[in-house]
Amino acid sequence: MTSIDLNADLGESYGAWRLGDDRALLDVVTSANLACGFHAGDPTTLLETARLATSRRVALGAQVSYPDLRGFGRRDLDLPAADLMADVIYQIGALRGIAAAAGTHVLYLKPHGALYNRVVHDEVQAAAVVDAVIAVDPTLAIVGLPDSEIGRLAEAEGIRFVPEAFADRAYRPDGTLVPRSEPGAVLHDPAEIAERMLRLATEGILTAIDGTDIALSAETVCVHGDAPGAVAVARAVRAALEGAGLTIAAFTAR
Amino acid sequence: MTSIDLNADLGESYGAWRLGDDRALLDVVTSANLACGFHAGDPTTLLETARLATSRRVALGAQVSYPDLRGFGRRDLDLPAADLMADVIYQIGALRGIAAAAGTHVLYLKPHGALYNRVVHDEVQAAAVVDAVIAVDPTLAIVGLPDSEIGRLAEAEGIRFVPEAFADRAYRPDGTLVPRSEPGAVLHDPAEIAERMLRLATEGILTAIDGTDIALSAETVCVHGDAPGAVAVARAVRAALEGAGLTIAAFTAR
Amino acid sequence: MTSIDLNADLGESYGAWRLGDDRALLDVVTSANLACGFHAGDPTTLLETARLATSRRVALGAQVSYPDLRGFGRRDLDLPAADLMADVIYQIGALRGIAAAAGTHVLYLKPHGALYNRVVHDEVQAAAVVDAVIAVDPTLAIVGLPDSEIGRLAEAEGIRFVPEAFADRAYRPDGTLVPRSEPGAVLHDPAEIAERMLRLATEGILTAIDGTDIALSAETVCVHGDAPGAVAVARAVRAALEGAGLTIAAFTAR
Amino acid sequence: MTSIDLNADLGESYGAWRLGDDRALLDVVTSANLACGFHAGDPTTLLETARLATSRRVALGAQVSYPDLRGFGRRDLDLPAADLMADVIYQIGALRGIAAAAGTHVLYLKPHGALYNRVVHDEVQAAAVVDAVIAVDPTLAIVGLPDSEIGRLAEAEGIRFVPEAFADRAYRPDGTLVPRSEPGAVLHDPAEIAERMLRLATEGILTAIDGTDIALSAETVCVHGDAPGAVAVARAVRAALEGAGLTIAAFTAR
Repeated sequence: MTSIDLNADLGESYGAWRLGDDRALLDVVTSANLACGFHAGDPTTLLETARLATSRRVALGAQVSYPDLRGFGRRDLDLPAADLMADVIYQIGALRGIAAAAGTHVLYLKPHGALYNRVVHDEVQAAAVVDAVIAVDPTLAIVGLPDSEIGRLAEAEGIRFVPEAFADRAYRPDGTLVPRSEPGAVLHDPAEIAERMLRLATEGILTAIDGTDIALSAETVCVHGDAPGAVAVARAVRAALEGAGLTIAAFTAR
Repeated sequence: MTSIDLNADLGESYGAWRLGDDRALLDVVTSANLACGFHAGDPTTLLETARLATSRRVALGAQVSYPDLRGFGRRDLDLPAADLMADVIYQIGALRGIAAAAGTHVLYLKPHGALYNRVVHDEVQAAAVVDAVIAVDPTLAIVGLPDSEIGRLAEAEGIRFVPEAFADRAYRPDGTLVPRSEPGAVLHDPAEIAERMLRLATEGILTAIDGTDIALSAETVCVHGDAPGAVAVARAVRAALEGAGLTIAAFTAR
Repeated sequence: MTSIDLNADLGESYGAWRLGDDRALLDVVTSANLACGFHAGDPTTLLETARLATSRRVALGAQVSYPDLRGFGRRDLDLPAADLMADVIYQIGALRGIAAAAGTHVLYLKPHGALYNRVVHDEVQAAAVVDAVIAVDPTLAIVGLPDSEIGRLAEAEGIRFVPEAFADRAYRPDGTLVPRSEPGAVLHDPAEIAERMLRLATEGILTAIDGTDIALSAETVCVHGDAPGAVAVARAVRAALEGAGLTIAAFTAR
Repeated sequence: MTSIDLNADLGESYGAWRLGDDRALLDVVTSANLACGFHAGDPTTLLETARLATSRRVALGAQVSYPDLRGFGRRDLDLPAADLMADVIYQIGALRGIAAAAGTHVLYLKPHGALYNRVVHDEVQAAAVVDAVIAVDPTLAIVGLPDSEIGRLAEAEGIRFVPEAFADRAYRPDGTLVPRSEPGAVLHDPAEIAERMLRLATEGILTAIDGTDIALSAETVCVHGDAPGAVAVARAVRAALEGAGLTIAAFTAR
């Protein structure tokens, strides 16, 4: 692999409440997962962020979520399939409107928070998300966890699926994430994280929390900007990858 | 005039709460103003209604509103222009997503409730709505009150403006609506309403509440479905217009 | 048993959307479970309903819910215990404010929808609800399903627990409700329902869906008002119980 | 005057979004205006903040608002009086529930944002707020601008009205605030602000933006914590007042 994508969650402010350093991250990443108003992202914030992303030639994706401002989309919700599909269609459409007003296009979808974790294994909800993409725009790619239900369903339907790795998260030997509730789940050292991502991008290998090496295929790496030091981590990852001669480019450009 | 459009507000249910007889009205009208989720219209309802409208070849419009589920968009809200523009862009986009999933397109915009009344005279809010249309899709028409600020601004920007009359409302001699708070503001007799609309469609004349005749240009007539007897009124209007040889057709088809 | 309580869910309108026939039901029931704004019930509606209930000497309870207007509180939500407790405290407090303004008091709590079903078996969420009652007002009773987790926890904490039966629902031989998704889950015949409730109130016995008799202890019977014919069922139940000489009275009066 | 109160807006976070340094301000102020969930303040945040305030013996007030999370309650909303009264009753009740769970009581009410400004001159909305206080708890004091409609109405109804000054705002010669949109509206220098508040507390005089001295009666001084440097300003004000021998104490203790 000579090219890799860096993505981040952006547009997650809401009204008077600010979250994350979107301007700084837009100079680091090549793909921006914009909130769609259901877990974060009021329309004014979204329009400003979409314009910033466009001016920096960063690709736009729709970060769709359960309807849950209070819980930031992190609380599991038993949505019937028909409601989930309609909610996702509505969110994709809303962000496409925002993107049009910013002079650009939505190119992919990435589920957020509890929905992201749910569609790894829940076939009904995963199918609802894939069906929404098919209904609105089947050229959208879907970003998610490698070896997930949504990945299998997307590919079965001819939708491009883009497997993702998380820069600042520890992995179990089976390739799943160490839950945030367990010790060591989140990594903080920029140098260590950069080195891990460099090895992942060049060799497809990541060291799991028990020290074993695991094979992991990822076309995009998620970095964060909403915690202290997070932007420094993102910059370190990018610098390490570029320093090794890799091209940092949106997966949608490939 | 040998052709006239009938429009109605549809998709105004929300979750467990049902409002209006959408199925009945879709057999009467030629244009459906679909709610966009800000005053009414959850995504599941919107998708179902858009599919019904498509199957009946009824044209779809976005009925954009202030964010106000509790007040059904009927309460005046001092939105800054930037927020209003972004809110309208978001709503248009969301409904375009719904329309795409239903195999059709959004063809026009109609402001709802307090926003409808505000953009008759408020230049700043009217401009924000027109700017939103220009930003997302300048081929959208805008429906509103004849001789309104939004009408002038739309036409100055090259946006098609479609003047509207209300079937069941009384008019003042100056061509404005009698406010709902005054006696006689709302008409109920199907025969009287049908006769008024027939004269309006054929002669461009309407009798005001003081008995004087006023000239009123309208390309579309709004009928309602959310009150007892409303569907009967809508059917009576359509029957009278068809009986006089007029063609009932969406204004977007002309 | 010579006395029984009839309860119903009331105040479930929201803004322009009306639901249920609250005035009719308030002449039938002795306890009113008022929504608290999280699944239904805007403050204006709640205040009006609380005043009506007070004028009819109907006891008031807080029908607390997950925060879910769109889903009417019927969708399961994984709320952390601290958030659920705080949400329930907030709702009880809000309804106590409404009750004070109506010249009355909140006397009990009944979970709504998905939360009602969840606290039957989920110890963490059941404890969060009980803890909220203890924190705000430990004199409140809690209404719920007999033989439930919330019932056991309430009684262990010295909170009065009031077991409930549903007039229009079929029961399994183990005393649980037949899920709505299964055939025969909801009963419709007023005479049959009235006879079942009479036997329950006098003998403590209910015929399960397989024809076997089961023992069921219930101090209150829930009737509904949001479906066609529901008020007629409620009236039939009351008439049958009164006709047999039972006193219909709020359980909080005992 | 030998005693003065310092108040601040607290509990204005919402879910994942944090706002203000509540812990720092609770060591400075003697009265805490807690949000009530309508412009900010989820129940979990409110419960935590109420507990903190209680442990520091800071008096609790309900900072009621228009329903407007997106606009942080800063957007003018034309609420009918009946709806506004019910909304305020609901919010007071909710915060009283939170306060009870924290082992304390709500002692006063202060309108927030656009509602604060509206009730200075709008008799209908001012009366709705006063009526809500009368309905729920007429022992609550009301904090607001001196010489305001709500002040007159409160006192006419026998409700204690507490006039307020703003530490970091410039005043016009007529005693009203310089609007934020005008230059010089917000003061930033801690020493200057402290000196102004000291003179106000001891002499009842404030220098207006045009250099003239104006008489201003204030029983409480509002300090802020949501801008950079705001906590430093608040500490400087307190230090100056204490250094001059004034007692800093909640107005509700007098």
